[in-house]
Amino acid sequence: MLGRTYDKEICSAARALEVVGERWSLLILRNAAFAGMTRFTEFQKSLDIAPNVLAARLESFVETGLMSKSDAGGAHETYHLTKKGLDFTPVIIALTEWGDRWAAPDGTPIVYEHDECGGRVRHELICGKCSEKPRPQDVSARKTAVMTRLQARRANRTARSR
Amino acid sequence: MLGRTYDKEICSAARALEVVGERWSLLILRNAAFAGMTRFTEFQKSLDIAPNVLAARLESFVETGLMSKSDAGGAHETYHLTKKGLDFTPVIIALTEWGDRWAAPDGTPIVYEHDECGGRVRHELICGKCSEKPRPQDVSARKTAVMTRLQARRANRTARSR
Repeated sequence: MLGRTYDKEICSAARALEVVGERWSLLILRNAAFAGMTRFTEFQKSLDIAPNVLAARLESFVETGLMSKSDAGGAHETYHLTKKGLDFTPVIIALTEWGDRWAAPDGTPIVYEHDECGGRVRHELICGKCSEKPRPQDVSARKTAVMTRLQARRANRTARSR
Repeated sequence: MLGRTYDKEICSAARALEVVGERWSLLILRNAAFAGMTRFTEFQKSLDIAPNVLAARLESFVETGLMSKSDAGGAHETYHLTKKGLDFTPVIIALTEWGDRWAAPDGTPIVYEHDECGGRVRHELICGKCSEKPRPQDVSARKTAVMTRLQARRANRTARSR
């Protein structure tokens, strides 16, 4: 896994990327979430990736708490998404929607459906105040007091280590 | 860029990852979208990454149409997100929310705000039929006719090449 690659970043998106930013990571989570895969051999066959790469990804998911591993041992071991792992589903859906819009010249190969009613599930931005769906260009990032505190703590640490 | 790393995947999320799946890619887009950065030196200083890596990422964004480059030449060149690039904003926001929930023990360092009303912007999954917000575990992926056609085309091609 990427580990502390983005160590200097005080940013939750960077933290998320440290967990799922390696090649194949999100596609493994996709197959666990949407194809119900649990076994090493299933992931390996479906994705056609090197077994050592797959093993490293699954172990890192267990380490970071995205998956839990059954203790059956050996080839019977199964990997299951935890709540923390399943919570990447919206990210996968957001990526899919981007790809559908910008990189699917033949059309949409997969749609996401709501189990309860069969309706099409989409990902959207919503404003908690006016309930509008803002366009990407109408959204800004604002630092919070947490950011100010973390930046100050970091500056102090840097000053002390000089 | 990853290029055709996920060539065997008929999947829009995989296509999206081929464009932004390399290390630093999404953080560069984040800084362009939310910190208004346009210059090589701004990205380089803020992210503290190797200049050759940054150059490769920016060139690949221009190549794939996520950014356009001003033709000022040399150090005066600026990089601007296109609509295609700006459209990754919801993915960045989705990643941030995951990180806020699962990897921000000190609290949320950044919030996203709606320029028009100052309200907090969130991403959410929404069902187009019943208007509910499904939980991740209540969403399934369904293959479309496009997928069936693309799989058949691929199988034919494989058969012919034998």
